[in-house]
Amino acid sequence: MTDSRLQSLQQAVPGLRLKSDPADLEHYGRDWTRRWTPAPLAIALPASIEEVQAIVRWANQQQVALVPSGGRTGLSGGAVAANGELVISMERMNKVLAFNAVDRTLTVQPGIALEAVHNAASEHGLAYPVDFAARGSCSIGGNIATNAGGIRVIRYGNTREWIAGLKLVTGTGELLDLNRALIKNSSGYDLRHLVIASEGTLGIVVEATLRLTDPPSPSNVMLLALPSFEVLMQVFAAFRERLQLEAFEFFTDRALHHVLAHGAQKPFDDVHPYYVVTEFASGDEASEAAAMAAFETCMDNGWVSDGVISQSDAQAAQLWRLREGITESLAAYKPYKNDVSVRISAMPAFLAETQALLGQAYPHFEVVWFGHIGDGNLHINVLKPGDVDYPLFVQQCEHVTELLAQALQRCGGSISAEHGIGLVKKGYLGSTRSDAEIAVMRGIRQVLDPNGLMNPGKLFD
Amino acid sequence: MTDSRLQSLQQAVPGLRLKSDPADLEHYGRDWTRRWTPAPLAIALPASIEEVQAIVRWANQQQVALVPSGGRTGLSGGAVAANGELVISMERMNKVLAFNAVDRTLTVQPGIALEAVHNAASEHGLAYPVDFAARGSCSIGGNIATNAGGIRVIRYGNTREWIAGLKLVTGTGELLDLNRALIKNSSGYDLRHLVIASEGTLGIVVEATLRLTDPPSPSNVMLLALPSFEVLMQVFAAFRERLQLEAFEFFTDRALHHVLAHGAQKPFDDVHPYYVVTEFASGDEASEAAAMAAFETCMDNGWVSDGVISQSDAQAAQLWRLREGITESLAAYKPYKNDVSVRISAMPAFLAETQALLGQAYPHFEVVWFGHIGDGNLHINVLKPGDVDYPLFVQQCEHVTELLAQALQRCGGSISAEHGIGLVKKGYLGSTRSDAEIAVMRGIRQVLDPNGLMNPGKLFD
Repeated sequence: MTDSRLQSLQQAVPGLRLKSDPADLEHYGRDWTRRWTPAPLAIALPASIEEVQAIVRWANQQQVALVPSGGRTGLSGGAVAANGELVISMERMNKVLAFNAVDRTLTVQPGIALEAVHNAASEHGLAYPVDFAARGSCSIGGNIATNAGGIRVIRYGNTREWIAGLKLVTGTGELLDLNRALIKNSSGYDLRHLVIASEGTLGIVVEATLRLTDPPSPSNVMLLALPSFEVLMQVFAAFRERLQLEAFEFFTDRALHHVLAHGAQKPFDDVHPYYVVTEFASGDEASEAAAMAAFETCMDNGWVSDGVISQSDAQAAQLWRLREGITESLAAYKPYKNDVSVRISAMPAFLAETQALLGQAYPHFEVVWFGHIGDGNLHINVLKPGDVDYPLFVQQCEHVTELLAQALQRCGGSISAEHGIGLVKKGYLGSTRSDAEIAVMRGIRQVLDPNGLMNPGKLFD
Repeated sequence: MTDSRLQSLQQAVPGLRLKSDPADLEHYGRDWTRRWTPAPLAIALPASIEEVQAIVRWANQQQVALVPSGGRTGLSGGAVAANGELVISMERMNKVLAFNAVDRTLTVQPGIALEAVHNAASEHGLAYPVDFAARGSCSIGGNIATNAGGIRVIRYGNTREWIAGLKLVTGTGELLDLNRALIKNSSGYDLRHLVIASEGTLGIVVEATLRLTDPPSPSNVMLLALPSFEVLMQVFAAFRERLQLEAFEFFTDRALHHVLAHGAQKPFDDVHPYYVVTEFASGDEASEAAAMAAFETCMDNGWVSDGVISQSDAQAAQLWRLREGITESLAAYKPYKNDVSVRISAMPAFLAETQALLGQAYPHFEVVWFGHIGDGNLHINVLKPGDVDYPLFVQQCEHVTELLAQALQRCGGSISAEHGIGLVKKGYLGSTRSDAEIAVMRGIRQVLDPNGLMNPGKLFD
């Protein structure tokens, strides 16, 4: 059965590169989640838009489900193929196609890594400002699929803001050339924005034109130690009011503990319960004075117990590592992840409620928090104790996610800030989107993918 | 027939304010276009979301088409009611509902005027940066319906960028609360962005939460005289490279002629064929030096023949009036308007092609150009000669629009940059959007408005 289908695919798309070794099925069948057993039919590695279209047409004839696949660094199971799907890996479609100095755009294939985009922009004296720790391995196609956020959202916004145009192969194999990098285009529904964050359920992004910007102005990084949780928003306000913030990230002492155990350098002699790493535009006397004023206000009010400011790029990188190294330092613990958001103004009440909830719900599990406070985005990582079975651990965590989802629903938050819904959070979609919204989403999906073959089972069933 | 329908509406929505005097039908039945004869069934003036929902449910029962109505300053016929539709005027739903200092958001009803939003933001020491000449009478609901652009897009983007959340009553009367002002929300399709620029065809926006920003830094306004058309993009590049541009607007001597005839003050002794008004962040020595350097580069290269820089706010306003007064100064000529866009890099070739095209096509009509060069957006106004009948004039203009649409299609431009498609441009939608895209749009419209009652005939039939 399988073989005859792959034969028909090979006939339908002559020259298409396919992989079906068990090691490949395993490798391409999963993302950074580890909850599902990969079981794809095979891996297709198209080299052109025409090949992608031909694969989609074949899939419609054969009723084979498709899973688009980029760097597979996702944390929501969005790129998992566990049900005999054909994985469409974009790894061969990873080129820079064009740079336009007047438009300040970079046109790329979807399989290009975020870091390669950074480098290409930089070669032209410009910047693509979306950034996060997985930059070396995640792909732009995946960034678009989840509207990836990261550490610079407070200054530059999410991926959405930087997509000037994109090409989509729909679930019927049609090629749509959306917005074509126009700045102003009030000519009907902006389908580009509909595609961004649709997690591969409306089609496959086969090309994107990215907006670039000026390289960031010189900046400084400051690490702050906080005595308690309640002062976090005051510290944020004190800095935001005085400085052009580029990042404002928070983490707990447990997070620091794991990063230090992973080789990072201890920033303070004393242990503090909470930390903030913030980056802000600097390089002139006024902003340096403003930074000191913000720091002193926080010290005078007892909101901050200690602090250090970077004196060099190397030291800035060292301070950033304390925040950026967290995810990697926790990987060995197979953490159960929540990635939630609320409006910034709802943060204090939500943080207090969540802290109480987690303290009660996870008496035996270690919980590590960190997040993008300036965006209202909190990452909650629950670490699996060595003596607890993984399925039982997940089951207990899911119970807490249920409570968390209820809290989010009460305060108008979101069950997924930047990871996407995928498989991991689809049971909780109803906490963030109303039944009527979900019905509209299903209807729209039906328009673009009438046979339900584009990443089925992700986002919703 | 009509009366019994209005009686049933009054029964279905007790207390609903209705108007049906001939003067009201005329007043509310049209926008700034003057091509269609207003003929609405009546005008409903709801005071609450619940009333809007009840009206939509009644419309579905009775199969009555609905036309949402804001300030009716539109230029595409999007708010015209010429076929017995019920107009839903938002003029009573015009309040500021909430300001949130931490989130920096302003929640408003859709009928509020743009200028009232500016004032409300300003009262809180912040700014809502979308701006254009119709600010006093256009409504935020209409701004959202067309993704309004204006004179600050080069710095701040279009309306889309500033909509943190919106509430929509769909074509079936469901209330969707979209995005709820979250900064990060990767939880399924972003229906908020689908609604923005949908021209009332997916439902009625009944509330919006707007993002605010810091008030603009001090700026300076410069008026430049250009000897020819070909140097325009070089002048733009010279200024963009050195300055933080807030606006970069172009107009022809014919445009200036009409503004001066309307009472504005002459800026230069000599007549020049083209002009640019540009505004840029200023207030420190570095930016003032950069502005002079840009100007001198342009003078040295012969790209600019003369220039004046504002020495006061009053003079800045005077220079702006030369650009902002154009539309009003032309109104008496019943101009036929095109509002097109291309990528900035495609501008020189498109401008040359368009200039040649218009010179040939309109030998007897006066053509006035102006536009937002920094956004690739050009406004082409053809003035009706006094001795030509209006229908004949429109017919001849439509012929040229057909040629213009073909030129736009060749260079990947858009037939509507910021006015919307409405009735005026729906015959040309296919020059900007492919058949496959239009089919997807129709399908999506069917999902949100299955009975086709929301602003039918606008955007597409």
